[in-house]
Amino acid sequence: MDRLSIIKIGGKVVETPESLTAFLLEFNKISGNKILVHGGGRSATNIAAKLGIETKMVEGRRITDEAMLDVVVMVYAGLVNKRIVAGLQALDCNAAGFSGADLDLIRAKKRPVQEIDYGFVGDIEEVNTKELRLLLNENIVPVIAPLTHNGQGLLLNTNADTIASALAVELSNIFNVNLIFCFEKKGVLSDPENEESIIFDLTYNSFLEYKQDGVVNAGMIPKLDNGFNAIKNGVKEVLITNAENIATGRGTRLFMGDRF
Amino acid sequence: MDRLSIIKIGGKVVETPESLTAFLLEFNKISGNKILVHGGGRSATNIAAKLGIETKMVEGRRITDEAMLDVVVMVYAGLVNKRIVAGLQALDCNAAGFSGADLDLIRAKKRPVQEIDYGFVGDIEEVNTKELRLLLNENIVPVIAPLTHNGQGLLLNTNADTIASALAVELSNIFNVNLIFCFEKKGVLSDPENEESIIFDLTYNSFLEYKQDGVVNAGMIPKLDNGFNAIKNGVKEVLITNAENIATGRGTRLFMGDRF
Repeated sequence: MDRLSIIKIGGKVVETPESLTAFLLEFNKISGNKILVHGGGRSATNIAAKLGIETKMVEGRRITDEAMLDVVVMVYAGLVNKRIVAGLQALDCNAAGFSGADLDLIRAKKRPVQEIDYGFVGDIEEVNTKELRLLLNENIVPVIAPLTHNGQGLLLNTNADTIASALAVELSNIFNVNLIFCFEKKGVLSDPENEESIIFDLTYNSFLEYKQDGVVNAGMIPKLDNGFNAIKNGVKEVLITNAENIATGRGTRLFMGDRF
Repeated sequence: MDRLSIIKIGGKVVETPESLTAFLLEFNKISGNKILVHGGGRSATNIAAKLGIETKMVEGRRITDEAMLDVVVMVYAGLVNKRIVAGLQALDCNAAGFSGADLDLIRAKKRPVQEIDYGFVGDIEEVNTKELRLLLNENIVPVIAPLTHNGQGLLLNTNADTIASALAVELSNIFNVNLIFCFEKKGVLSDPENEESIIFDLTYNSFLEYKQDGVVNAGMIPKLDNGFNAIKNGVKEVLITNAENIATGRGTRLFMGDRF
């Protein structure tokens, strides 16, 4: 099977032209098939504020009402996605940007209202990579914005980590997938005060223990849940690292270990 | 040669969910290969105003400074493009949205400053339809936002009529292209006060005469220039009509006539 790298970057990387350019140079070093999945949270918050729309977060998750949905569609699929695409084209990397509605790539259903009404947030139901594979075959680099659709005309806001993980699982049927979560730290840290305390090999077993002991911080947990979920479902490798190390492969690597 | 319909719609059609839905139902009736090119002018003006960015127009053309460029990228490639794509997917039409940067589709150069500084506006230099043809072959319907790029990381604002015409010319090498400019009127009118005074057959010769006599109004002239340019360069048919008639083919049809 051919190798495919799926790299997920947070919104912070795309916030300044400098950090975006630095990231894209590293991204461009990764050889072979690759897909970039991006967030865009902070830019959306800034634009929303300028438009007089209040950002409401519950446990780190954005509440997406109708006005906020318009903002995230504009910012994620518009501003952030096209800046990345134009930046990659400038490096002779033939990128093409998509939301989950394009090519019917990712169908989701609006999250049911339980204790919290998240609004127009989508939980993934179906990933359809037919045309994506065709484009990968032509050396196109898909750049995916964190939006899905319900198949009935409604766009939905969906977490970028979850999208990266879902794409990785779906494509692991035909590729050896290397899933990389790129954020500000060099990996998962055993001591949040010490940037060099990287846990290089993280088994599911130790993750559960770290989680219980509070070593792994709250913001990291959904990312690791997504990562281990990918490993459990056929993704070959999962790496958590920063922009400087996406091509070197240095960072925290997830393993199922002997628990499974 | 296979037939390909390229339909250009103005920003007004996408302004309300009702007019967009009505248009998409008509668009969905067109059989065979098709591409949709959209504008989005008025939505950009509204969003810019909310963001406190002033819209400057000179002779009907938007001056695109840096702040306005961000707005048009957000609105055209984000909000408008993705609403159309999600709307088409709801009709089981497998749409995919692109800007001119995606797939390196349309390269442009920033318009040189002469009497007027248009800002970040792009004049088309190169159209590259390789991957677009691949997607058409898979029954994908490309939806193109009126943005181009300069190949060096810069996105540029480009007139949607011009993009539709340039794509039509480029693709006329391998398709019998039918280019449709869809706007609010039923066609080019010989009497602007009478909505039914449609000029059904318009030759280049009569266009020049109408233009001289002031029969054809100013806003219509660039559209007709684009249309005749397409005909001169190999496009099979050019039709100017409203949303209700894109599938019926009723409206103003351009002909070179005996002048050429």
